[in-house]
Amino acid sequence: MPRNDTVRALDWQGDHLRLLDQRRLPVETTWLDCRTAPETADAIRDMVVRGAPAIGIAAAYGVVLAARSALRRQPEDWRGAMANDLTRLRTARPTAVNLFWALDRMQRMIDSDPTDPLQVLEAEAVAIHQEDLAANRRMGHLGAQLIPAGARVLTHCNTGSLATGGYGTALGVIRSAWAGKGLAAVYADETRPWLQGARLTAWELVADAIPVKLIAEGAAPLLMQRGEVDWVIVGADRVAANGDTANKIGTYALALACKAHGVKFMVVAPSSTIDLDCLSGEDIPIEERPAEELLYMNGRRVAAEGAGAWNPVFDITPAELIDVLVTERGVVSDFVGKGVSALFDI
Amino acid sequence: MPRNDTVRALDWQGDHLRLLDQRRLPVETTWLDCRTAPETADAIRDMVVRGAPAIGIAAAYGVVLAARSALRRQPEDWRGAMANDLTRLRTARPTAVNLFWALDRMQRMIDSDPTDPLQVLEAEAVAIHQEDLAANRRMGHLGAQLIPAGARVLTHCNTGSLATGGYGTALGVIRSAWAGKGLAAVYADETRPWLQGARLTAWELVADAIPVKLIAEGAAPLLMQRGEVDWVIVGADRVAANGDTANKIGTYALALACKAHGVKFMVVAPSSTIDLDCLSGEDIPIEERPAEELLYMNGRRVAAEGAGAWNPVFDITPAELIDVLVTERGVVSDFVGKGVSALFDI
Repeated sequence: MPRNDTVRALDWQGDHLRLLDQRRLPVETTWLDCRTAPETADAIRDMVVRGAPAIGIAAAYGVVLAARSALRRQPEDWRGAMANDLTRLRTARPTAVNLFWALDRMQRMIDSDPTDPLQVLEAEAVAIHQEDLAANRRMGHLGAQLIPAGARVLTHCNTGSLATGGYGTALGVIRSAWAGKGLAAVYADETRPWLQGARLTAWELVADAIPVKLIAEGAAPLLMQRGEVDWVIVGADRVAANGDTANKIGTYALALACKAHGVKFMVVAPSSTIDLDCLSGEDIPIEERPAEELLYMNGRRVAAEGAGAWNPVFDITPAELIDVLVTERGVVSDFVGKGVSALFDI
Repeated sequence: MPRNDTVRALDWQGDHLRLLDQRRLPVETTWLDCRTAPETADAIRDMVVRGAPAIGIAAAYGVVLAARSALRRQPEDWRGAMANDLTRLRTARPTAVNLFWALDRMQRMIDSDPTDPLQVLEAEAVAIHQEDLAANRRMGHLGAQLIPAGARVLTHCNTGSLATGGYGTALGVIRSAWAGKGLAAVYADETRPWLQGARLTAWELVADAIPVKLIAEGAAPLLMQRGEVDWVIVGADRVAANGDTANKIGTYALALACKAHGVKFMVVAPSSTIDLDCLSGEDIPIEERPAEELLYMNGRRVAAEGAGAWNPVFDITPAELIDVLVTERGVVSDFVGKGVSALFDI
């Protein structure tokens, strides 16, 4: 792999799925083996693997594991024997639509009456994985074309190899821009409460020799006020038909600050992230995770006993704050009229 | 003290200053004794005591300690013998103007040729402390008048008894509103990187039986988008002549989100926070603290070795985003024309 693309989060081993345990990065680089669908669903729920595209890929491999188990237990009704596992995978996390997209795609293979179900399902999961990697390289190329040489960019959360099949979405654009015309600065929000920026994005960029400066997300508007940011580049967990975009909590605040300072705002996501069934951001379910993610740090209580917390982990950025959506099918910069649906015209 | 005002951060003992060690809250409630001016300056720099008004009060007591030492060492030239200590106090932190205001006020007493310097200086420091407490109660009253019954409020950082001589600025308004007409919800930003909201504001509100819900600051715009916030109420570290306000990093992002959602934005600060020598926010120096505050957590590295960080701890909110500035001299809601200078008219 090239020098600036050395990290992978998922490794299909033929009979099980190896996941880089992202809860332990950057302190430890350990892998977790998922040998069953429930183990895979738990790994998604517990954020061993996270990032919308990576969740979809992991779930696809989880379907392969579910099918193998079902074919062993009830070869005459392997579809019925998979049902619980499929439900468990589908309910692992609610916001990223890539999970449902990947499961729907696997379901079509299940329904196709294959002679060798395991072989067909494994081939489909591998295709989902490989197509994601290819889509990311394509988006990297398309997005980087929009970034001038020597630009200063800011990103949020982790959207890199760790969040995808490899290369990354927003971080893929940053990789391509860095390797191409060059960037003057890459800033990363630390991204509370899970610190994906500090723990994951910094680790991945350091591994790939791209200099990175962390900031608390509250510092982003000051950086913009000082004229130090040209583009904010983020990923997405779900894009509605009107272009409204669900992404990691804190994204909407960045978009508002961009608007106030004339900084460009780019969303980078594969077309599997677009959910035409959601007409607007109001239709996108927002996951709320346990209050403990705010009340504890490294297992130690940080807030007084008796304090409560509200911990939504995604927010909605209205389409009117997005300058451009980059997908592997092309870019959208006008969300009025055909908007994102134009990407799906034949 | 009333049930909703039980916390104090500074306790003058006649011969030394006791400071509640805010670095250890809420895990431990320990006090640090400062017996010299350098110890006091270090306590300010290291954030044993923090919050603009509290810093000013601590520095005033530091001057008393400096005078006592100087009078012992060089009674014939006690003013000259204090010079180094005064410099050390003055350079402890750069942004909060209350530090310089309190030191200037103490300097006037030093220059007044007192017969009993120690007695005069101690009386002045105690006056600064008591006047701050009285100003906070007055601001609490004035600010709470603007908040309708059953309002939902959001605050940032810690502006309570821990940040002041007692009662608090923004948190004083919240205390008064809570005790008066009543509030439906109090949200507190956790406030990265030092977690003043999680560690201090939550502790103080729990101690005073005011229910509080913590959020990551990135979640504030989502809360506003859902119509769950009526007022954002914050303190200030320095207010420029045009009303531009320096406050804890993340304040400006909140103000931008308020603007986008029609949420009211209140700044609460004693008039000692106003610096008419700063014409606008551009004249206010912004403290940058060590990158380690972002790179480590509880002494443990969170970001990969090799990652950098930028850690400005204040930002500037332009006056046009502020609906009202509440001071003990009255409120300002129009920053054009006489603006804040009207507060100082005789």
